[in-house]
Amino acid sequence: MKWTIANRIGTYRDAALARQAILTKPTGALGALEGVAVWLADIQQSEKPVAGPAAAVVFASDHPVSRLGVSAYPREVTPMMVINLATGGAAASVLARLNGIPLHVVDVGTEPYPAPEPAPGMHWHRALTAGAVGDLIESDAMDAIALDAAMSAGAEAVDSLPADTRIVIFGEMGIGNTTPASAVSARLMGMTAADMVGPGTGVSGEALQAKRDLVQHALDRTADTTAPLDVLRRLGGREIAAIVGAMGRAAELGMAILVDGFIVSSAALVAARHDERVRDYMWFGHRSAEPGHARILDALQATPLVDAGLRLGEGSGALTALPLIEASVALHNQMATFEQAAVPDKED
Amino acid sequence: MKWTIANRIGTYRDAALARQAILTKPTGALGALEGVAVWLADIQQSEKPVAGPAAAVVFASDHPVSRLGVSAYPREVTPMMVINLATGGAAASVLARLNGIPLHVVDVGTEPYPAPEPAPGMHWHRALTAGAVGDLIESDAMDAIALDAAMSAGAEAVDSLPADTRIVIFGEMGIGNTTPASAVSARLMGMTAADMVGPGTGVSGEALQAKRDLVQHALDRTADTTAPLDVLRRLGGREIAAIVGAMGRAAELGMAILVDGFIVSSAALVAARHDERVRDYMWFGHRSAEPGHARILDALQATPLVDAGLRLGEGSGALTALPLIEASVALHNQMATFEQAAVPDKED
Repeated sequence: MKWTIANRIGTYRDAALARQAILTKPTGALGALEGVAVWLADIQQSEKPVAGPAAAVVFASDHPVSRLGVSAYPREVTPMMVINLATGGAAASVLARLNGIPLHVVDVGTEPYPAPEPAPGMHWHRALTAGAVGDLIESDAMDAIALDAAMSAGAEAVDSLPADTRIVIFGEMGIGNTTPASAVSARLMGMTAADMVGPGTGVSGEALQAKRDLVQHALDRTADTTAPLDVLRRLGGREIAAIVGAMGRAAELGMAILVDGFIVSSAALVAARHDERVRDYMWFGHRSAEPGHARILDALQATPLVDAGLRLGEGSGALTALPLIEASVALHNQMATFEQAAVPDKED
Repeated sequence: MKWTIANRIGTYRDAALARQAILTKPTGALGALEGVAVWLADIQQSEKPVAGPAAAVVFASDHPVSRLGVSAYPREVTPMMVINLATGGAAASVLARLNGIPLHVVDVGTEPYPAPEPAPGMHWHRALTAGAVGDLIESDAMDAIALDAAMSAGAEAVDSLPADTRIVIFGEMGIGNTTPASAVSARLMGMTAADMVGPGTGVSGEALQAKRDLVQHALDRTADTTAPLDVLRRLGGREIAAIVGAMGRAAELGMAILVDGFIVSSAALVAARHDERVRDYMWFGHRSAEPGHARILDALQATPLVDAGLRLGEGSGALTALPLIEASVALHNQMATFEQAAVPDKED
């Protein structure tokens, strides 16, 4: 899958930097909030960036590897949480509502369940899936057909957002999915399972060691695989693949991507290794408590905005950070300049 | 000045913890957002905490020490920024407006200037001040009269907020005020000037070393002073004293205090050392880029919510974090329980 992503020309980036320098504050004193405004000006090719409309899309999938004891929760939780997300009771549902943005729940491969009646502001659909999936140990996570279907479902979910969407948040739900996320990111960063595997939703002790052993086994089995989309196919999962596809499409459409935590960052790593221009469209929302997240952030040279110890997924960390994007844009567009306020600038 | 602050009895804290345990997420997975909700339930003595009404109060003062070259900005900037805050052009003004909360600017001692015409949502007044102020080197920052006047002005600013105010943010404006904040906090933590003095709004090189030398000189001059309010009087500043007084009064009234960065945290340190019960009413909004802030956070065992490299003051960091308080409360009150969503909990 090839993406057609515009190279930034930098004109609006320079104009935004120049504006930041004349606002009534020491240059740099708003830290990352200055950076976010300059980034959005560049992506949106506008002197006055906007922080919306924004939308959140949560992709959900089952993982055959969850039968192997890698999670503290039973795999049946995945479809139940899909319903909870769609009916407004999950953390991401609450945060989307609080932010006044739509939440789209896209099932890319769970066990069947009755179609939920979405709450106001929530949307649900089951994407067409095809191909074979596996548990990483006996067989690859996806065959080529499944990978293509999942990535296409991600791209189509972005295509189906309102055309004026400027900021998009991707989330995920999939019991067991810290296992494939650890495997994929370990391979792409040249690390071992011990470097990357953490507690996820809450395994510890022997179960955590078993999870590490399983991931190392999967890494050893696929040691010859290095191309990002091949790594994704053999070691990933359908919701992770959907996010990779969605990120590529969002970048093609010039949308800003506010990246969530560990799982979504593993998808961001795949996407950025597949086409480094995708990285230009990403800002990172939060630093997850999952230990491996810091390594992915380092690899992507990312400094996230919020550091509140979240480790839930669903897009909840990025949704928590969305108001900081709004703050950044409001400051950039609304603060007085030194000239307007008749305030003298720093003495050089 | 004695404060009458209620001891928390813990009933609602326990109830809030019990509710967090049955929401559809792994317990602890929302990190500090869980902690904030439990903290507010405890302070507000309510099973369903609220995130507002909130208000911001920015105290401003001149500092005689600013004549000694400790800042990159001329001291005349302080009253000009007071006007900019009141007329809606400063960072804190923009963020207060974005959050839909009032911003009160209280001048506790700057040079005279024409009374500004506040923008919608902004308020300004000049508090009565009295007593003598000094530059830390030749004389104490305040005499007893000035300290009392400033602390009282802070308490009165809190008293004048609407009675239903539940969350309060304090900010400050005062060219040169990282110098007294460094001096006060160094003394209360038993540290040296080298431990605590940083660039502030932007001094570096020789000017930074001169600032360090000046603070060490002030610390040496007052080496016999350890009582928190005496340290504040001899080494602080009027806006810092006003914030200390305001924090005590806010705690007396049961308001939650969302603490800003370096300067406001130095006031929080004074307040908490003066009466440790004040600490129960504080959550910390952000980690400032000013290096000494991390030391104050450690001393107060505080882990802030946002880590975006801000170092502006005015309350801007806490205002940036306010939406996270709202997120915490919305999650606590609105998420479905495992029973409501018919989702099985973790397998033990």
